Amino acid sequence: KKQYRIAVIPGDGIGKEVVPEGVRVLEQVAQKFQFEIKFDWFDFASCDYYEKHGNMMPEDWKDKIGKHDAIFFGAVGWPAKVPDHISLWQSLILFRRDFDQYANVRPVRLMPGVPSPLANRKPGDIDFWVVRENTEGEYSSIGGRMFKDTDREVVVQETVMSRQGVDRILKYAFELAMKTPKKHLTSATKSNGISITMPYWDERVEAMAKNYPEIKWDKYHIDILTALFVMHPDRFNVVVASNLFGDILSDLGPACTGTIGIAPAGNINPERLYPSVFEPVHGSAPDIAGQNIANPIGQIWSGAMMLEHLGEPDAAAAIVTAIENTLKEPKLRTRDLGGKANTEEAGKAITAAI
Amino acid sequence: KKQYRIAVIPGDGIGKEVVPEGVRVLEQVAQKFQFEIKFDWFDFASCDYYEKHGNMMPEDWKDKIGKHDAIFFGAVGWPAKVPDHISLWQSLILFRRDFDQYANVRPVRLMPGVPSPLANRKPGDIDFWVVRENTEGEYSSIGGRMFKDTDREVVVQETVMSRQGVDRILKYAFELAMKTPKKHLTSATKSNGISITMPYWDERVEAMAKNYPEIKWDKYHIDILTALFVMHPDRFNVVVASNLFGDILSDLGPACTGTIGIAPAGNINPERLYPSVFEPVHGSAPDIAGQNIANPIGQIWSGAMMLEHLGEPDAAAAIVTAIENTLKEPKLRTRDLGGKANTEEAGKAITAAI
Ligand SMILES: CC(C)[C@H](C(=O)O)[C@@H](O)C(=O)O
Ligand SMILES: CC(C)[C@H](C(=O)O)[C@@H](O)C(=O)O
Repeated sequence: KKQYRIAVIPGDGIGKEVVPEGVRVLEQVAQKFQFEIKFDWFDFASCDYYEKHGNMMPEDWKDKIGKHDAIFFGAVGWPAKVPDHISLWQSLILFRRDFDQYANVRPVRLMPGVPSPLANRKPGDIDFWVVRENTEGEYSSIGGRMFKDTDREVVVQETVMSRQGVDRILKYAFELAMKTPKKHLTSATKSNGISITMPYWDERVEAMAKNYPEIKWDKYHIDILTALFVMHPDRFNVVVASNLFGDILSDLGPACTGTIGIAPAGNINPERLYPSVFEPVHGSAPDIAGQNIANPIGQIWSGAMMLEHLGEPDAAAAIVTAIENTLKEPKLRTRDLGGKANTEEAGKAITAAI
Repeated sequence: KKQYRIAVIPGDGIGKEVVPEGVRVLEQVAQKFQFEIKFDWFDFASCDYYEKHGNMMPEDWKDKIGKHDAIFFGAVGWPAKVPDHISLWQSLILFRRDFDQYANVRPVRLMPGVPSPLANRKPGDIDFWVVRENTEGEYSSIGGRMFKDTDREVVVQETVMSRQGVDRILKYAFELAMKTPKKHLTSATKSNGISITMPYWDERVEAMAKNYPEIKWDKYHIDILTALFVMHPDRFNVVVASNLFGDILSDLGPACTGTIGIAPAGNINPERLYPSVFEPVHGSAPDIAGQNIANPIGQIWSGAMMLEHLGEPDAAAAIVTAIENTLKEPKLRTRDLGGKANTEEAGKAITAAI
C-alpha cells in the first residue's frame, strides 16, 4: 500500500473550519483507492500563533514540515491581528521561496450549480488552467526610495527575470499543455509596454515552443488578455504568465466562472525536492469565521489537486466528480451558493458522494 | 463665437474610415452649440507615412501640432508594415511623454443595444471612469540584460514612481470624483506583493485623500480588483491606477460592458500646456480595414470627450445622447453589433440625431 505523509496547516479564520472537511474527504478517498495518508497537524503559519510567539513560524519549521509529501493548507491572514505583509510574507510567500514552489497552478472551470457572472455559459464551456511563475519577476523586493518626504521623492522597484526562472515555468506549462486534449497554450505578455523584461519572456516562450511542435500556442498582451477572459473564456486551455500577471489572471479566471470562493490552488515544486502547498483561493474570511457557514469546496478541491500531484489521478478525479455531483443538489449547497447546508454538512455530503 | 483648432490624425487602417465620421459629428454639434472648429489634417503618425519617410513623424512634428487645442486621433499600427514597438512608441507613447499627457481617462459604461458579456446588467447599472497614470511607473524603459544567451542570463527592469508623478494623477482622479454625484474613488494597488512602489502609491493616496474629505475612497489589490470588475462592476465610480494597472483595467472595464470596440480614451494634459489626444480604444483593425464596415462610435464618442476637455460639456453630452439614441435602433447599428449599417451610414445617423 502506498503511504503519504501530509502536513496539515489550518491557519486562520475559516481555514480552521474547512480543513477538517478536506481531510475527511481525503480519508474517504484513500480508503476507496487503497492508499494511506498520515496527517500531521501544525498550528503555525497563523495569526494566533503569531500572537503567542511573536513569529508566524517556529525557527525549525523546515525540520517540521520540509520532509512531508505535501502541505495541505487552509488560509492565512487576520489583518486586525497581524498586518498582511507580515502574515503572508512570513508564511505563504516564504514557502513559495524556500520550498522553491515556482509553479502556481489554478483551474478555471465552470461548475454545475455555481452562478457565473458571465452570460450564456454552461459547464463544459470554460475549463482551463492558469500557470503562474511563483518566485521571481515583479515580486523581487529590490529597490528603494530617494529624496524621502520631499517633492523630489522617487521610488524604484526592480522586476527580475532569470533564464532559469523563466524557462522552468514555461517548461512546466508546455508539459501541462501536452497532457491536455487541446494541446494549446497561451502566454501573457506586455512587450509593447514593459519593454525589457516582457520581450525577454516572449523570446523564451518562442524558444521553448520549439521543443513542443505539437503545441499550438499564442500570446496576448495582458490588457487584452483580461478582456478575452471575459469575452471568450472558451478559447483558453493552458495560460502561462509571470508572477504579477499570473496573480491577476488566477483571480480573474475563477471570478469569471463564479468559483473564486471555491477554486483551489497548488504552489508546486515540480521536482519534488520540497513539499508543495495546496490551498483554496479564498482567504481566511474573518467576517464569516467561526460560524460553520464557510463553503468547504475550495479546500476539498485543493485536496484533489494534491492527490494529482502525488500521483493519484483517479482519486483526484473522484473528488472533482463528487464535488460536481454534490453541487447539482441545491440542498447540499452552502449559503454562498444559495443553499442551507453548513460547512460540515457540505463536507459530509461530498464525502458520501465519493 | 468660441473657436477651436483641432489637429486631425487618422493614422492607419480603420482610423482613416472612422475619423471622417467623428469630424462630421463634431461639425454638426459645433453648429448647433454655436462654436467653431477648425480642423487641420495630418498624414503622419501612421505606418503609411513610415513607409514613405522611414519615420513615424516629421522632425518638426511639435511645430505642426503642438499649438492645437487638441488632437483628434484615429488609430495607429499595422504590424505587417511596421513593428508595434516602433509604430506605437514613436507616435502615441511619444505624445503621452512629450506632451505630458499624464492622465489617461476612459469611461466604462453599459450602452443600450450593446451586448455585454456580463449576465443581468442593464444600462445605468455600470457607469464609471478609469483614470490611468500615463507617463511613468512600470513603463520606465530602464533596465537591461546580463550574462546574455547563457544559462545565468538575468533581465532587469525598473518601475519608477515619482512624488510629482503620483500626486498629480491622484489629484486629477480626486478632482474628477468631486464632479461626480457618487463622490467615490477606488485605488488599484498590489502592496501585498509589489512591496516597494505599491506601498508608496498607497501612502500618497492616503495623503491626497486628506484634501478631499467629501470623497469616500477604498483600495483593492489588482488581482481582486479585476475580479470585482466582473462580479460587482456597479460598485465603481472613479478608479485610479498606475500605468500598468490602468492599462489593464481600462481594457477590462470596456470588455465587461461590451464596449471595447466603441469606447473612447483621452490622453490628457490637464494643465493644457500641451494638446491632449482623444482616440477610440480600438486599434487600426487591419482585418476589416478598407471595407467601410468599422463602427465609428468609438471615434465619435472620443469627440465628445474632447469637447468636454475643451469646455463644451453640453455639446459633449449631446453627442453621447445621440450615440445612445442611435444605438437603440437595431437598423442603425453596424455589423459588429448585429446591424447592417456601414461606417458612413452609422456616422450620418448619429449626426442626424444631434
Ligand atoms: C500599445 C500599448 C503600448 C498601449 C499601452 O499599453 O499603453 C495600449 O495598450 C494602450 O492602452 O494605449
Ligand atoms: C497575498 C498575496 C501576496 C498573494 C500574491 O499576490 O501572490 C495572493 O494574492 C495570492 O495570489 O496568493
